[in-house]
This record gives sequence, C-alpha cells and structure tokens, in this order.
Amino acid sequence: MRLSELSRVSRVSPATIKFYLREGLLPPGEPTGSRRLAEYGQSHVHRLRLIRALTEVGGLPLGAIRDVLAAIDDPGLGMHDVLGVAHSALAINPKGATRSTDLHAARSEIDNYLAGLGWHVPAVQAPARDALAAALVALRQLGWRCETDIFTPYARLADRLAERELDIIPTDAPRDRTVEAVVVGTVVFETALVALRRLAQAHHSARRLGEPP
Amino acid sequence: MRLSELSRVSRVSPATIKFYLREGLLPPGEPTGSRRLAEYGQSHVHRLRLIRALTEVGGLPLGAIRDVLAAIDDPGLGMHDVLGVAHSALAINPKGATRSTDLHAARSEIDNYLAGLGWHVPAVQAPARDALAAALVALRQLGWRCETDIFTPYARLADRLAERELDIIPTDAPRDRTVEAVVVGTVVFETALVALRRLAQAHHSARRLGEPP
Repeated sequence: MRLSELSRVSRVSPATIKFYLREGLLPPGEPTGSRRLAEYGQSHVHRLRLIRALTEVGGLPLGAIRDVLAAIDDPGLGMHDVLGVAHSALAINPKGATRSTDLHAARSEIDNYLAGLGWHVPAVQAPARDALAAALVALRQLGWRCETDIFTPYARLADRLAERELDIIPTDAPRDRTVEAVVVGTVVFETALVALRRLAQAHHSARRLGEPP
Repeated sequence: MRLSELSRVSRVSPATIKFYLREGLLPPGEPTGSRRLAEYGQSHVHRLRLIRALTEVGGLPLGAIRDVLAAIDDPGLGMHDVLGVAHSALAINPKGATRSTDLHAARSEIDNYLAGLGWHVPAVQAPARDALAAALVALRQLGWRCETDIFTPYARLADRLAERELDIIPTDAPRDRTVEAVVVGTVVFETALVALRRLAQAHHSARRLGEPP
C-alpha cells in the first residue's frame, strides 16, 4: 500500500508517518518505480500500532521508544535483556532528591530488603530501587514511623503478578512476537494496574468515607 | 526560625522556598519587627517535606501540587473528596488517542466491566477509565485477542490493596493528619508499587529467561 493508505489503515497522519520514517522508528517502504513513492505492508501497520501503544498508553518519549524498538529488532538480545530495556525506557520518579545522605542510607536498606525477599536485582533496575528508597525517605520525613516492611504487601502482590505475567509468555512462538509481547505487557499493564488501583481506591473510599449524596 | 534556618532544616534552598512562598504553596511566616524578615515554624518544615514528596516521589507538577494542598487545607472537604483531588493530580497515560471510535466502544466495555466488579466509579475517575480503555484498544490493535477480563488479575489485586490501604487510615486522628496520610499513601505507594512490579519482573525474568552468565 502507499503512504496515504497506510495512514488510513493505521489512523496515523501522513505527516506523523513521515516523521517516524525520518526518525528511523519506522523502516522505509519498498521502493517502487517512482522515486518518491514507496510500498508499505502489514509490518508497517503493526509497527505504527506498537509506536502508538508505547506513546499513548505507556507515555514513553520518542528517544525511549527508539531504544525499545531497537531492542525488539536486535535478534542477538534475549528476552530478559529486552525487558531490561523496556524497564529503563519507562520513566519512574523520583527525579530529584539524589543528594541527600538519608537517601544513600535508605538505598542500602532497600538493597537488604530486596535481598531478604530473595530478589536478585540487576544494575539496570537502579531507578526502581532508588524510587523505593526515595519513597521510604519521604514517608519518614513526613513523620511515618516505618521500616522497609511497609512495602511488603505491595512486594507480595508484585511478586505474584510477575510470576503470572511470565507464565503467560508463549515459549513456542517466534522470537519477535514473544519479545514484543513482553514489552507490550510490561508497558500496557503497568498503566492498567495504576488505573485499577485508583479505581479500586475510589470505589472503597466512596463506600467507607464518602458522605451520603 | 528564619528562612536560612528553615532552608537548613528542610534541605530546600532559600531560592526554592521563596519561590514556594510567592506561588502560595507555602504559607507566609509570622511577621517580625523587621519588614523583610519572617519567622517560620515546624508546620513550614512539614509543608516543605510534603511538597518535596509530591514532587520528587510522586512526580506531580506544580499546578497539581497546588490543587492537592488546597484540598488538604480545606476543612470543608471530606476524605473521599480529597482522595479524588489527589487522583486527578496524578498524571495517567494516555494523552492521545481520544478520537478513535474503537476507544469510544472500549469505554463502554470498561464501564460494564467495572460495574460487573461492583465498583462504582465517580466521574472524577474518567482518566483512569480512559486509560484502561486505551490499554484494551492498544492490545487488540497489536493482535491480542482479549476481552476486558484480561484485567481481572490486576483488578483483584488492586481491590485487595485498596481495602487494605483504607483499613490502615486512622479514624481517630485529627482531620488534617488523616487527610494528608491518604494523599501521601496514594501518591507514594503508587510509585512504590510500580517500582516493585518492575523489580519482581526483573527477578523472575532473570531466573526464567536470563542466560547463564
């Protein structure tokens, strides 16, 4: 199909498609006789949908999407490594607070806590570890008397979820489809989980704390 | 204490404190004899820590923090309403995709799904509902053959978490402390949950999918 048809099918504007082509996020189409026209296929439609999912559902910036797509396309990368790239691409707070000595101490506490859970966490996960440390420091500075075990209910749920999420990865599908499923699952269900926690809180809070209308 | 002391105790720079004062995020200090000096107290230290937690752990922009602080400070607002303000202040993807007809249909599916869970979701939670609808559309466009029940494992966990989170809200503490605890809990543990899911995924993925070193 031509670019106009690709735009219609994918519901992505021609200008945006050209932008993705220039930025190398979308591979070029097959050249045709005419110098200025190219032919696109289903793989282009699919790639555009993947870019949209990462942008619109995952909120990933363009540079992060580039890294994730490169990892998916690199046949030398194993699934575990691609997951690491997806995790690094997803932003996580905190952005500030890295200078505090409290934070430095809290990082060690979190490392011990994670080791106690039996989780072996690679260096690429440092932002997630730092986010937990910053959460602990913030709670204490606000007067919460808490230890790392305040995270245990969350850690238990996360543990069960992750096991389940890895269970449903097909092991007999071709690499590119499996790897994409891992990335999509990580990104899309993170948004879904956050949304569902808020909806559940709203529901329970209305029941318990809401005033009668 | 004077502003320089407030800066030292709170580890927030004098320029940033002055900025928060100008923006009305931090209430003015008590005037002293001198026209240009004011006296600050523990409530200012605490408020600065709250602002830092919302910024650095929650990633909230300044406008959102203003709304959350105003809700905390408004004695006429019940706890359930303050939680709604905190939820609205937290950004959620998606930012785009609102024009698609698929999304419109998916919204109804999500509404039915949430009703089926017995969750009554107020209008203020529309962004979370839309995020779920966008997640469903994205999965299907990428070839996942899925219905809303793909979210059920996440919804069950979110349900249990929310119940637990509401259980530990003290019911006998003064309003301002309780309301703040609700906001801090929502914001800080959202980051913690996301971080823990990624850490758990990294751990399980290394065990199952990682190549031996």
